[in-house]
Amino acid sequence: MALIVQKFGGTSVGGLDRIRKVASRVKQETDAGNQVAVVVSAMAGTTNQLVSWARDIGPMHDAREYDTIVASGEQVTVGLLAIALQNIGVDARSWLGWQIPVRTDEVHGAARIESIDTELMRARLASGQVAVVAGFQGIAPDGRIATLGRGGSDTSAVALAAALSADRCDIYTDVDGVYTTDPRIAPKARKLDAISFEEMLEMASLGAKVLQTRSVAMAMRHNVKLQVRSSFSDAPGTLVVNEDAIVEQEKISGIAYSPDEAKVTIEGLPDEPGTAAAIFGELAANHINVDMIVQSATGEGQGADITFSMGRSDLARAMELINASKDRLAFYNLSAAENVTKISVVGMAMRSQPGVAKTMFETLAERGINIEVISTSEIKISVLIASEYTELAVRSLHTAFGLDGED
Amino acid sequence: MALIVQKFGGTSVGGLDRIRKVASRVKQETDAGNQVAVVVSAMAGTTNQLVSWARDIGPMHDAREYDTIVASGEQVTVGLLAIALQNIGVDARSWLGWQIPVRTDEVHGAARIESIDTELMRARLASGQVAVVAGFQGIAPDGRIATLGRGGSDTSAVALAAALSADRCDIYTDVDGVYTTDPRIAPKARKLDAISFEEMLEMASLGAKVLQTRSVAMAMRHNVKLQVRSSFSDAPGTLVVNEDAIVEQEKISGIAYSPDEAKVTIEGLPDEPGTAAAIFGELAANHINVDMIVQSATGEGQGADITFSMGRSDLARAMELINASKDRLAFYNLSAAENVTKISVVGMAMRSQPGVAKTMFETLAERGINIEVISTSEIKISVLIASEYTELAVRSLHTAFGLDGED
Repeated sequence: MALIVQKFGGTSVGGLDRIRKVASRVKQETDAGNQVAVVVSAMAGTTNQLVSWARDIGPMHDAREYDTIVASGEQVTVGLLAIALQNIGVDARSWLGWQIPVRTDEVHGAARIESIDTELMRARLASGQVAVVAGFQGIAPDGRIATLGRGGSDTSAVALAAALSADRCDIYTDVDGVYTTDPRIAPKARKLDAISFEEMLEMASLGAKVLQTRSVAMAMRHNVKLQVRSSFSDAPGTLVVNEDAIVEQEKISGIAYSPDEAKVTIEGLPDEPGTAAAIFGELAANHINVDMIVQSATGEGQGADITFSMGRSDLARAMELINASKDRLAFYNLSAAENVTKISVVGMAMRSQPGVAKTMFETLAERGINIEVISTSEIKISVLIASEYTELAVRSLHTAFGLDGED
Repeated sequence: MALIVQKFGGTSVGGLDRIRKVASRVKQETDAGNQVAVVVSAMAGTTNQLVSWARDIGPMHDAREYDTIVASGEQVTVGLLAIALQNIGVDARSWLGWQIPVRTDEVHGAARIESIDTELMRARLASGQVAVVAGFQGIAPDGRIATLGRGGSDTSAVALAAALSADRCDIYTDVDGVYTTDPRIAPKARKLDAISFEEMLEMASLGAKVLQTRSVAMAMRHNVKLQVRSSFSDAPGTLVVNEDAIVEQEKISGIAYSPDEAKVTIEGLPDEPGTAAAIFGELAANHINVDMIVQSATGEGQGADITFSMGRSDLARAMELINASKDRLAFYNLSAAENVTKISVVGMAMRSQPGVAKTMFETLAERGINIEVISTSEIKISVLIASEYTELAVRSLHTAFGLDGED
């Protein structure tokens, strides 16, 4: 007998028929003799409706009221799923964040879970009752509802699995696992049987949308065995586990890409200490995250150039801030490009096998794709390229690193 | 400075614009220096949607889950109204049933309020903060959300007003007060400036839909000064108060009618003790409420006839039950009529002025309207008549008792 935490997102519970299907899924686990806690999101569309009401009612925004409004979505789903389970003979009850309780910090709208009291729930699980848990919500120190921010239901599920010392946390989604790359642009993409937390973290932060970065980081910290699998099929998904648990380590796990990037170039900066700090300090103070950075001195007396990438949505604000500092920074030219994409090669084995960068750069060069910026970490190499080459780059790298499956 | 409880129903908060109007209403009271707690229902249509989901998800029904689902509607409204108030410069926060807490009994789906802890809320009100309270909900002894049943927001408002010892409880609705009769069928109907609790109770239970019977009874018990007024105009409404507080006592306050009645006649019952008990005991056991009853012995050896009225929706079930007992009850004929209406004359002064019944019967007789059943209480006389005479009877009685206003 195992204790399983299951998580179903908004699409999986987006209607009464789908909720009944989720109930059948849960029953498969209880029929197999397992204890089950199932975490659910709001029905698809509900959260968007609630968020837009909360925004449109007036320009001033109270995050505590926002949380009260938005958390109602999951409240509906847990009640419906509990009834659906009872109707197929499975003992079940709903749990709201404040009922468990899931205690969070005081940052309404983007709260962090601080503790989950599972004593009562454990007793119910042990008696064979399924716990149907509202994701995305908890109770703040002020006694009011707090939400974890968008996608917070993944985090709720992982945190609950950690608190319950669950044997597994199954994240049900509309894809059937984690792929070597996006199957929509690379038909030879393969589903991975397993991937390490570290790799998943890179993949998630690089745009593979199957799991929230935050939930992967939490699973890694608490060593929660995650499984990403499909709501719509019984096929096994992808296990996201500790590196040691992966028997057959692949050299490269996947190729990720992030299309929503922009590039900024500042030319002719004074080549003296403190210049970079001045620019990036200003951006950070305005909550603009900068990703890849390249600085090059152009030669004696000509000053330095800095190029960096960032999320496209912040570009206009960043340009405004830098332009406003033109006199102080004393650069002679500022330019930006929106049509850039970040392509990343991710894999644990990279650490011990230094040929990865070479293969990557050669593969792109052979296709005539210019690399504008490069950045590396222990388990990934990212490059910025012109967006028009995205598909070509992803497919070529997928083949070059031996990831292609049977088509 | 006074402490006012305001209550707005689903139509009054049925959209963002309407919620903003409610906020202005609340601001009028705070601008006047009053402390305000405002109780709101779910946005119009929301509760119906939630109820139908809870019903359609499966035939088995868990009232605790039903409550969890349905109570989410008010949760959305309180958050939106609190934000709307903040946006016009009024300090406000939302309160859910479990946050106050409003403690109820364990009868999920139709819970009764047992106590309201107002200590924290009082402190906030005293500091000038408006309390925006979710109607219709509380927390049961099992720690789960309980709802008060349909129309429960009126009850929430009155209970809160009692707990806070509020100076007044204003019930905002889509009519501008309590009328002497239904203006839709009697154009000369007049708005009452004041009505006693007892009269309002009779009017409410007789089909005047402005206030829930249960909330009137609670207001009477705790002597909460109620005011029924319009959400859409600034005109003063109708005060529902203790009899003593009404200076100019009208002889008759109003004419009520209830069209959803049915009449059952059982002929030739054995004229012996226990017959009535057998019939009505059986109906009561099946939760069928019987209203007016007339029993007549038809003469030596011929047995007795019993005629009674009841809600039309229960008629088919009642007929089935009685027919099933035909052998045991030994009657010789059973018949029913659906086209009957109950007309009632209501007024405190009736107690001291015995001419009311005479005027009522004479007025109906003059119009050729046959009275089928009569029942009386201390402050009302009700008769059952053929439905086709409803308008004629209401208008004639309205004139006969001097209730007609300027047309």
